[in-house]
Amino acid sequence: MNYRMITYLTGQIMKLEAVFMLAPLLVCVLYGEGDYFSFITPAAILIAAGFILTVKKPLNKEMSAHDGFVTVAVAWIIISLFGALPFMLSGDIPNYIDAVFETISGFTTTGSTLLTDVEAMSRSNLFWRSFSHWLGGMGVLVFVLAVLPQSNAKSMYILRAEASGPKVGKLVSKMKSSARILYSIYIFLTLLETVLLCIGGMPLFDSLANSFATTGTGGFSVLNNSIAGYDSVYFEAVIAIFMLLSGINFNLFYFLIIRKFTDFYRNEEMKAYLGIIAVSITAIIINTYHLYGSLAKAFRFSSFQVISIITSTGFATADYIQWPEFSQCILLLLMFSGACAGSTGGGIKVYRVVLLFKVALKEIAHTLNPRSVVTLKMDGKPVEAGVVKGVVNYTVLYFFIFAFSLILISVDNMDLTTSVTAVITCFNNIGPGLGFVGPAGNFSGFSSFSKIILSFDMLLGRLEIFPILLLFRVGRR
Amino acid sequence: MNYRMITYLTGQIMKLEAVFMLAPLLVCVLYGEGDYFSFITPAAILIAAGFILTVKKPLNKEMSAHDGFVTVAVAWIIISLFGALPFMLSGDIPNYIDAVFETISGFTTTGSTLLTDVEAMSRSNLFWRSFSHWLGGMGVLVFVLAVLPQSNAKSMYILRAEASGPKVGKLVSKMKSSARILYSIYIFLTLLETVLLCIGGMPLFDSLANSFATTGTGGFSVLNNSIAGYDSVYFEAVIAIFMLLSGINFNLFYFLIIRKFTDFYRNEEMKAYLGIIAVSITAIIINTYHLYGSLAKAFRFSSFQVISIITSTGFATADYIQWPEFSQCILLLLMFSGACAGSTGGGIKVYRVVLLFKVALKEIAHTLNPRSVVTLKMDGKPVEAGVVKGVVNYTVLYFFIFAFSLILISVDNMDLTTSVTAVITCFNNIGPGLGFVGPAGNFSGFSSFSKIILSFDMLLGRLEIFPILLLFRVGRR
Repeated sequence: MNYRMITYLTGQIMKLEAVFMLAPLLVCVLYGEGDYFSFITPAAILIAAGFILTVKKPLNKEMSAHDGFVTVAVAWIIISLFGALPFMLSGDIPNYIDAVFETISGFTTTGSTLLTDVEAMSRSNLFWRSFSHWLGGMGVLVFVLAVLPQSNAKSMYILRAEASGPKVGKLVSKMKSSARILYSIYIFLTLLETVLLCIGGMPLFDSLANSFATTGTGGFSVLNNSIAGYDSVYFEAVIAIFMLLSGINFNLFYFLIIRKFTDFYRNEEMKAYLGIIAVSITAIIINTYHLYGSLAKAFRFSSFQVISIITSTGFATADYIQWPEFSQCILLLLMFSGACAGSTGGGIKVYRVVLLFKVALKEIAHTLNPRSVVTLKMDGKPVEAGVVKGVVNYTVLYFFIFAFSLILISVDNMDLTTSVTAVITCFNNIGPGLGFVGPAGNFSGFSSFSKIILSFDMLLGRLEIFPILLLFRVGRR
Repeated sequence: MNYRMITYLTGQIMKLEAVFMLAPLLVCVLYGEGDYFSFITPAAILIAAGFILTVKKPLNKEMSAHDGFVTVAVAWIIISLFGALPFMLSGDIPNYIDAVFETISGFTTTGSTLLTDVEAMSRSNLFWRSFSHWLGGMGVLVFVLAVLPQSNAKSMYILRAEASGPKVGKLVSKMKSSARILYSIYIFLTLLETVLLCIGGMPLFDSLANSFATTGTGGFSVLNNSIAGYDSVYFEAVIAIFMLLSGINFNLFYFLIIRKFTDFYRNEEMKAYLGIIAVSITAIIINTYHLYGSLAKAFRFSSFQVISIITSTGFATADYIQWPEFSQCILLLLMFSGACAGSTGGGIKVYRVVLLFKVALKEIAHTLNPRSVVTLKMDGKPVEAGVVKGVVNYTVLYFFIFAFSLILISVDNMDLTTSVTAVITCFNNIGPGLGFVGPAGNFSGFSSFSKIILSFDMLLGRLEIFPILLLFRVGRR
């Protein structure tokens, strides 16, 4: 294992986090909040440690898949452990385990919160909290790759470990250029949303924070009532559209930019994603029409909630645990599916769900006629057997971790709906679940032990299991 | 497709069901109950229809896998539709859909009931209800194969469709002899349990009915309080031991009889099955100790419930929805696992769970080191790639059907715990779930639509999905 390379990249990411902390520090100054040192102290430690770790450049730049995965896992844990310090030092979240939970929930773009009163938090901490969504959304290491001069072809494994979905590829031959393209699209979407929200009259602070949480598909809000607090159809529409866009594979936007329209339109995952959304909205409108009394109102609330859940954002404009069971079950299934691979969204990913569905159909065809040969296709092209196997085995592993987490947090003796959906919503990086962790609830009722388990689930979900699991095996190689 | 062979076998099964109805008719006479015609009428129809269908023997005895699967599906639906008539005609379950639900619950050895007062039912109907567990447990068509003179090697496919587990093989070269061996073991276990219960002072009627429900891993009871109604440690111990035995692959008993002890001891599935049971009992004892106050009492209730759930029997001696969440979650996971392949139990089967666990471990090893070659082994021998693929794909299909069923029954607007566990318990042929369908509850709160969906789930679970799915495609071949 290339320890020196892993250490070096970890050092880089620590320095980078210190730089990122300047943003909330600026907010602190602008709003005249006195908590400078809650950002300066961790930033100073990060800078110092970062310099020590990067003093020696690694001579050997070779990185195995294993190295890449371990780097990503270590980096994510480090930034979360340090990213939690401002919350703790300022006294907004005095308990360190709670602060780490909230930070991991931020970086992994989960958006599950322990706070009962978000508005009581300082502006600078609120900003840092929402900003962490944005940093985690596209991947902090992908960012490093985009800016580091020495990133080379070998860093492909880092992109693979940090980006979502079963098939991660470079957009262009150079890894670094790919990372830059992805970040450019990401920044463009974020700025556009901020401008649109400002035009509608949302304060700049809120516009930025909500845009970070939207394009990162995070879901932390700066109001206690989430997006419902603004009670504005315009804001809801803008946010819903940008959530929808952030749930699409970013490679597709690149195809649009370089005018590869066929590659865009032929994308089966995006069609399935939009199809699932359309069907779910329609079903929920029919099921909740009697609650809202008008089609427009039913559409307004069902479409926002469906898009928020499937993209794993977790913003809320309606307390959907008041909806009939049928609508809640649809949301529950959307929590599993999640958004498209290569987006900032979480969950199993629509690509995998579509592929699994085809595997199921193929299995039926095979049993019907054992000699039949059915080729699995996606986007009109056959899918390699290795990819199919990987997706299926990933899902198997996914459900074992799900079951294991459930057993562990059930010790807290919450009701089944709360326990099950707490794991689902954390593991799939959504935010709210059902029961006590519904949109109007929060995670403060769980024990520290469960908070640690759920934090791990968030990391496992965001990094798609393997990097985190490998960490436990580092010593054995 | 060999329609004539399918028709012929269906005719045979109808005649056989008529013969089986003589048993409850005898009970009717012995107890002086007047409902003779509720058995005589359906039996007469079955005999008449059976004779018409079997008048012409099929010349072509070739059966494809497809033919075998369709035969099994048709036969199971037919026996359920006719088997429900006694309940309806006698007035004990006046609604036909309810009667069919109860009958399918019987034949599939599920044991989920719609009845709020079991003890109000006539003795003859109670007998028929418990007897249906026994008939369905080992498979009605396997019985036909055991007694029909013309069964040949081709009927292997029927055994494969009706028996449980991913790898169904003949015990001896002749299909018919295999079927006879299995039934001999099954009858021996049933009689032994009946005798043991009688010795302990249980009335013959109850002993027989409970033995049918135990060895068939069904779970219908003749008392409103299930086995708790007897309040006897001896009865509970006898029943627990026979549930445990009935959850083991019957082939293993055959190995014991022919003194192939190594094949018995090397069986990984049985070891895992016993291991899971031991761990679950221990965990629940620790978690419920404060409720029972003594180790003996905690052991008594936790062991019975664990064995009842993992074997998919569904008898109860404790209302486990009063247990802490942790214990309930363990039972929930046991509901998925189910018993051993080749037993009378339901669920995904321990064999599949063990194999899936190995697949997950292998996937981790593979990601750690992409060039590593790990061979999956069971019982010390490598598992064919086709079997692994089949098991994994079966599980994928399983979860799609699970999700689809959940959405459909959620229209009834029960709470999530009830809806989810209703599907789990029916699909895995267990009986009780959690929430309103817990051991002290029943399924009467569901709409007719949901009862039909849950009935299909029971059939899908008992026949391991494919035969029932094929039915919907018969016309397309």
